[in-house]
Amino acid sequence: MDWITHSYMGRRGVAKGHAGREHQLTEAKQGAYRYVYGPYAEPVLHIEPGDVVVAETQDAFEGKLKTEQDVPSEVLNMPFVNPQCGPIHVKGAKKGDVLAVYIRSVLPRGPQPAGTTALITEFGGLVSTGTTAMLNPPLPERVKKMIVTPEGVQFNDKITLPFEPFIGTLGVSPEIEAVTSLQPDYWGGNMDLPDVAPGAVVYFPVQHEGAYLYVGDCHGRQGDGELCGVAVEMPATVTLQVDLIPNWAIPGVRLETEDFIMSVGSARPMEDAARMAYRDLIRWLVADFGFEESEAYFLCTQAGKLRVGNMVDPKYSLGASIKKAYLG
Amino acid sequence: MDWITHSYMGRRGVAKGHAGREHQLTEAKQGAYRYVYGPYAEPVLHIEPGDVVVAETQDAFEGKLKTEQDVPSEVLNMPFVNPQCGPIHVKGAKKGDVLAVYIRSVLPRGPQPAGTTALITEFGGLVSTGTTAMLNPPLPERVKKMIVTPEGVQFNDKITLPFEPFIGTLGVSPEIEAVTSLQPDYWGGNMDLPDVAPGAVVYFPVQHEGAYLYVGDCHGRQGDGELCGVAVEMPATVTLQVDLIPNWAIPGVRLETEDFIMSVGSARPMEDAARMAYRDLIRWLVADFGFEESEAYFLCTQAGKLRVGNMVDPKYSLGASIKKAYLG
Amino acid sequence: MDWITHSYMGRRGVAKGHAGREHQLTEAKQGAYRYVYGPYAEPVLHIEPGDVVVAETQDAFEGKLKTEQDVPSEVLNMPFVNPQCGPIHVKGAKKGDVLAVYIRSVLPRGPQPAGTTALITEFGGLVSTGTTAMLNPPLPERVKKMIVTPEGVQFNDKITLPFEPFIGTLGVSPEIEAVTSLQPDYWGGNMDLPDVAPGAVVYFPVQHEGAYLYVGDCHGRQGDGELCGVAVEMPATVTLQVDLIPNWAIPGVRLETEDFIMSVGSARPMEDAARMAYRDLIRWLVADFGFEESEAYFLCTQAGKLRVGNMVDPKYSLGASIKKAYLG
Amino acid sequence: MDWITHSYMGRRGVAKGHAGREHQLTEAKQGAYRYVYGPYAEPVLHIEPGDVVVAETQDAFEGKLKTEQDVPSEVLNMPFVNPQCGPIHVKGAKKGDVLAVYIRSVLPRGPQPAGTTALITEFGGLVSTGTTAMLNPPLPERVKKMIVTPEGVQFNDKITLPFEPFIGTLGVSPEIEAVTSLQPDYWGGNMDLPDVAPGAVVYFPVQHEGAYLYVGDCHGRQGDGELCGVAVEMPATVTLQVDLIPNWAIPGVRLETEDFIMSVGSARPMEDAARMAYRDLIRWLVADFGFEESEAYFLCTQAGKLRVGNMVDPKYSLGASIKKAYLG
Repeated sequence: MDWITHSYMGRRGVAKGHAGREHQLTEAKQGAYRYVYGPYAEPVLHIEPGDVVVAETQDAFEGKLKTEQDVPSEVLNMPFVNPQCGPIHVKGAKKGDVLAVYIRSVLPRGPQPAGTTALITEFGGLVSTGTTAMLNPPLPERVKKMIVTPEGVQFNDKITLPFEPFIGTLGVSPEIEAVTSLQPDYWGGNMDLPDVAPGAVVYFPVQHEGAYLYVGDCHGRQGDGELCGVAVEMPATVTLQVDLIPNWAIPGVRLETEDFIMSVGSARPMEDAARMAYRDLIRWLVADFGFEESEAYFLCTQAGKLRVGNMVDPKYSLGASIKKAYLG
Repeated sequence: MDWITHSYMGRRGVAKGHAGREHQLTEAKQGAYRYVYGPYAEPVLHIEPGDVVVAETQDAFEGKLKTEQDVPSEVLNMPFVNPQCGPIHVKGAKKGDVLAVYIRSVLPRGPQPAGTTALITEFGGLVSTGTTAMLNPPLPERVKKMIVTPEGVQFNDKITLPFEPFIGTLGVSPEIEAVTSLQPDYWGGNMDLPDVAPGAVVYFPVQHEGAYLYVGDCHGRQGDGELCGVAVEMPATVTLQVDLIPNWAIPGVRLETEDFIMSVGSARPMEDAARMAYRDLIRWLVADFGFEESEAYFLCTQAGKLRVGNMVDPKYSLGASIKKAYLG
Repeated sequence: MDWITHSYMGRRGVAKGHAGREHQLTEAKQGAYRYVYGPYAEPVLHIEPGDVVVAETQDAFEGKLKTEQDVPSEVLNMPFVNPQCGPIHVKGAKKGDVLAVYIRSVLPRGPQPAGTTALITEFGGLVSTGTTAMLNPPLPERVKKMIVTPEGVQFNDKITLPFEPFIGTLGVSPEIEAVTSLQPDYWGGNMDLPDVAPGAVVYFPVQHEGAYLYVGDCHGRQGDGELCGVAVEMPATVTLQVDLIPNWAIPGVRLETEDFIMSVGSARPMEDAARMAYRDLIRWLVADFGFEESEAYFLCTQAGKLRVGNMVDPKYSLGASIKKAYLG
Repeated sequence: MDWITHSYMGRRGVAKGHAGREHQLTEAKQGAYRYVYGPYAEPVLHIEPGDVVVAETQDAFEGKLKTEQDVPSEVLNMPFVNPQCGPIHVKGAKKGDVLAVYIRSVLPRGPQPAGTTALITEFGGLVSTGTTAMLNPPLPERVKKMIVTPEGVQFNDKITLPFEPFIGTLGVSPEIEAVTSLQPDYWGGNMDLPDVAPGAVVYFPVQHEGAYLYVGDCHGRQGDGELCGVAVEMPATVTLQVDLIPNWAIPGVRLETEDFIMSVGSARPMEDAARMAYRDLIRWLVADFGFEESEAYFLCTQAGKLRVGNMVDPKYSLGASIKKAYLG
């Protein structure tokens, strides 16, 4: 794609946005999946900037919710959920660099119905949870299976929704922490942000030698906020082109498509995630696009967009974006 | 427009969505503008269901920020900001009914530059305020004027943004309260939600005999969140077609366009506004579209949209919506 | 009491803290109780600085929950709850002044059991509400009656709690708003803060000519946060000594006892209420006690106290205080 | 102390609350301090239930802020702050058990002035931070040193505050995560809660074989909320008696003194921490003290206390408590 040439990855990446060698990260190659983002696991793959990784991800339940009769509380075993492929070691990556991940495709794999959503006790945006702790009785558990193909998500007999796949959990390792793959943070992780989709380049601030890229938790589609906490979860084949941008100090995750740039904030309460995202976007406009700070603040006020990724995970993730066409 | 026939207003309104008599609510007719949404002011206009009102609104600063040299803290006099037209008495409206307001047009009026944005001390989404109270020094005050026409908003010499006007503050009176026009709530008010735009029908739960409709605070355009607290404020000519739907119990503001239905929540922290909006949307799907509750919860999870109206007012306003095409 | 001589009321009040004429504000004299704090009602009493008011308040349910068999949702009629005595007009009070209210006593009145607590649907700190809107089923409604005397609150057969009465709702009118008596704000109102108790002087920033003092909603005692939303509600006889401090610009409610000074913040989320309270306390230390700002910030860090008044009302109220003994 | 016999530790601990062998965990024995709570480090000490550990903790800055002329941003190196002693392996501890830690003493050690507080850029309860991200300019950095002895904390020339020491950071390892020692959570960590003080027994839910106890970050005293983010930090000698309670399922940290029991919640926003704490306290009353749930809810409403530990760390920590005397 042409715009990639002019993207940050194309202009500043070690591989200039060119694809290198392709690696297959199959289930067999992965072996045990990972449940934390951290530096303590041995890499399952070593790649160089520019290399392409084709990874076989599991769904967030590691395939344990097989039928609509399954009961989540009986088959899931916390904290062993949201399994991740990785870590993938990227040669030369070090703290202070940025890992660029160009998402080339996300496709469902495995038997149909490939898609799963569910009501999990004490989890979700509209129920009492372990943190927004209430005394109200819980809702009944429920599992819903959906056929998911590139032609659509068969929500039920009457409703088919567009297939708009993306990666729920993607990022690099923290420096010394190992954090549950359920949590998003400045290094990425479980952002559940639908913009992390084919066609986007996502930028992560490297914290640890080799970056240690993780990926998992693909979704066939999702509404804003991932309301009940469980999107159209599916096992997937994910194709990622990875590049390395040396010496780019960014405080958190950034993202770029042909049309817009976006900063991501992950925090609670939700307004703090919005503040993080917008402040970083303003600083980005000042640093790279010649804006005076108050002018950038005004521009985001009049033309910024907010995307609510999730309102259910340990931190909520929001993306603040602005169209490239508005940047003068 | 054809879809109006099939809207709630068209199907259940007293006037069946048909336009009645047109009323001019000029500056002269309005006289003193209003700074609270409440039942204690005398109506400036009495209308019947179906009537059309053409109102001359002031900008949020009542025109006091005339040049970029004006200093907000010197010319503004709290709490006398965000002046409103109204109240407009709607014949037959009573508690338990819904006032339907079909927005036909919002156009800038008065001399150019008609648009104003500003940095106001202790106000905005990315600064210390009276509630998110910090010890950090404030940003300098600043006023920015912009030419606003239907062809666009001239943000600066290099950037012209699309003209996408809407009404920042619109609603009905609470039952016994009189609340600052700076605040949004279940009766409407200062939602600063860009979907309250030409082409939409907005539904308000009537609290007081005659509904007491207020309108003001139009914007030439605005980004999600109204980040610095001040959109492209402009004096405007607003054309509203008002109808009355008897006996429709809704807990807060709802909205409808040709393509989607939306519930609005206003609260802090932001996740509570999102919860309010989504819960009402789910209950709407259950009550009117035949969904079982968990199925509606799943559908909003996979296909709901969240619009962050404002993240700066006394309550944040978010709209949760779903496409009519997805309702089966 | 001696310390009153050295209080703000004693030093700067028009009446120098001396008690003047006593007024009886009986149920009969009050007539209709009030459900908003606002300037639109006619005063029921006119007093002068220094005067003492003995008011007969109703409980928050206006006595409608008479037995443990009563069902709140059947007998309560929103928004007509939390009835208030007042408004009381204080001669000479104007915007920019402070109304000082010295609470001399709060005693239960009427037949026993005088105390009532209850579980109200969609209300309380540990249940789904209209704002923290969940889909979980509600808890059953329940009413609990308790004998309340100066000797104690008979919680049940086994447990008697100390009688530690205070005023749940107390304050002055906003300038142009009329706000439900359920809400606390910078003018006071429904703070539900146990420090608003006999022996304290509470300071309110006057917004409207005559101040328009309101009082109601007394509690026999309450834990921090008023967890289920309903304290030991009781009808009471309240004795207040009212004074006027001219030209004291305070941004919200302040409070003083013999031992400490306190600033009150009311906001959501709860950290914002804490920030408001602590920031005002720091500014108070700087303005009146000779502290440099960072030194005051350090002192509050090491010696400040936070009292969570309520975590259930439309805004949460917290008091930040510091012992007078620590002020050097 | 007699009450220990009747405490949970005394009644249900493997060692019945009796002190066993004493271990010295000196600086030399500790070697490198730890910056995460996790299972990936090798234990520095192996103990048995009942054993006593005397640990030499560093202050939160590892002694790098030596004078008031030091500049935090120049000498601190994130994330290597808040150094911890440990992990300490407790024989027999396994997931599903509770580690009981009886705090016998916390005494300052090292040269005077032993106490340090500071203003750190982008950190604190009343300033813009990385999460509550504002555009306002920061406050100047500042370091303040204080002499700290059991006789008092010399805040400045005029003010001496009581010595009321406690442990800021204490807890066990998560199961698979390794989390920064700056963060509190259900396993303990950086709660900065002044009740974690000599005379208290703190209960932690074991997640990992051997429990892996960590301790550090002692404070000479602290106000509620730890407002600027930095208490009276001091290197300390800490004496802990550790016991093990098999098969006690608790969802987070609990605490007991002679007079009260307390549940701790750590979350953002602050009301969620309060909800977690109070809900657990109610469930505790139901499980162990014979209360029906609504009766426990009422009792906490009328007699519960909330302590705001910190309002500055990645999660805020609050303790909800009730006097043992009120439990009938």
